[in-house]
Amino acid sequence: MRLLLTLLLLTTTLPAQDTPKNLGVLLFPGFELLDATGPLEVWGNLKDRVTIVTLAPEKGPVTSSQGITLIADHALTDTPPLDLLLVPGGFGVRKLLKDTATLTWLKKTTTSTPLTMSVCNGASLLAATGLLDGRPATTNKAYWTQATKPGPNVNWIRQARWIDDGTIVTSSGVTAGIDMTLHIVARLYGQPVAQTAANQIEHIWHQDPKNDPFAAQ
Amino acid sequence: MRLLLTLLLLTTTLPAQDTPKNLGVLLFPGFELLDATGPLEVWGNLKDRVTIVTLAPEKGPVTSSQGITLIADHALTDTPPLDLLLVPGGFGVRKLLKDTATLTWLKKTTTSTPLTMSVCNGASLLAATGLLDGRPATTNKAYWTQATKPGPNVNWIRQARWIDDGTIVTSSGVTAGIDMTLHIVARLYGQPVAQTAANQIEHIWHQDPKNDPFAAQ
Repeated sequence: MRLLLTLLLLTTTLPAQDTPKNLGVLLFPGFELLDATGPLEVWGNLKDRVTIVTLAPEKGPVTSSQGITLIADHALTDTPPLDLLLVPGGFGVRKLLKDTATLTWLKKTTTSTPLTMSVCNGASLLAATGLLDGRPATTNKAYWTQATKPGPNVNWIRQARWIDDGTIVTSSGVTAGIDMTLHIVARLYGQPVAQTAANQIEHIWHQDPKNDPFAAQ
Repeated sequence: MRLLLTLLLLTTTLPAQDTPKNLGVLLFPGFELLDATGPLEVWGNLKDRVTIVTLAPEKGPVTSSQGITLIADHALTDTPPLDLLLVPGGFGVRKLLKDTATLTWLKKTTTSTPLTMSVCNGASLLAATGLLDGRPATTNKAYWTQATKPGPNVNWIRQARWIDDGTIVTSSGVTAGIDMTLHIVARLYGQPVAQTAANQIEHIWHQDPKNDPFAAQ
C-alpha cells in the first residue's frame, strides 16, 4: 500500500517537473534584436526544460530595429498558457505604448504567467500596464528618462544589471538580458546548470546584479 | 579652377567612404542563434555605415539550433558584392561540411570579400575551404577537437577570444563574436565608435583577444 501511495505521489508530482516550461517571447516591429535573441540563445539550449513560443501582434515575419526579421509562430490572440514571458525592448516600444490591445494582452498575460522578464525598455511596456507600480525595477541606462516615463509610480533603480522582484524580473540594456537570464536559470534549475549554460556560449557571466558599469553613463 | 578640382576630388573620394558597407551573413539550418545575432546587433546599430544582407542556401525561413527562425533575403546564388562576410557556427555545420555547393560558394565569396569573420565553429567551414591553411585561427573551446578537424593544416590557437589575421578574423564560441565584432568596428571606424557601440548595448567589452577564460575548459 505504501509502495502504491509512493508511486501515486511520484506520478502526480514528477511529470509536472519534467514537462518543459513554455516560454513566450513578445516580438513587435522595431524590437531590439539582441534583447530577444540573447536570452533565447540561453533558453533555446535548455531544450529538455524549455519550449519557446514566438508571439507578436500579428503572426508571421517581424523585423527588428537592426533590420533582421524573425518569424512569430503565434498571434497574441492565439497565446498558449505560459510559464515564462520575455519582453524585449527597442525603438518599436514607443509605438507599442499607444497600442491598447497589446498592452491589455501584456497585463493579462503577465498576471497569469508565473514569471515575466523584461530586457532594456521592455520594462517601459510593463510599467505602462501598471503592474510595476510600487515595485522595484530597472531599464536601460542610455535612454533612462524616456524609458522610465511610462512608470511614474515604479521604484526605478538605476544601479542594477537586473532587478529580481519575484514574479517580475527586469534587466538593464541589451546584453544585461543574458546575465539576467542566467540568473533565472540558476533560480529555477540551480547554479551548476546556469554555469554550464554560460560556459556553453563562452559568456563571461556577470553574476552580481549591482555591478552595473553603465549606470554612470 | 582649384575650386572645381577640389569639388571633383570630393565627389570622387567622399561617396566611396560614405557608401555603407555590405555585410553578408550566412544562415543555414541549425546555425547558432547568437553566433549570428550577437554581431548583427552591433552591425545593425551602425545603420549609416553598414547594410546587412541575409544569405542562405535557400531564400526564406531558416531555423536556428535554438528553434528561432530568421528570414534569409537572398539565396547564395543571388549574393550581391560584399565588403564583409559573417559566418556563424552551430550544430548545423556538421551537415554543411558535406555540402559541396555551399563550400564552393564560401571559398569564392571569402576570396572576393575584403574581410570575412567567423564565430564559433563557423571556422570549421572556412577551414574546410582550405583558405585557413597555414594561417592562425581559433574556434569554440567546448567542441575543440571536432571543430578543428576540418583544418589539419590550420595553425589553430586555443588561448584566444579571437584571432585577427587581416582578411580573415575568427572568434571563439558564441558571445566571443560580440567582442570580435567590436574589435573590427574599432579597426574600421576607430575606438570611440566601437566603445559607443558597446555602451549602447551595455556590453562589458573584453578588448584583450588573449583573455580567454574558456581555453582551459
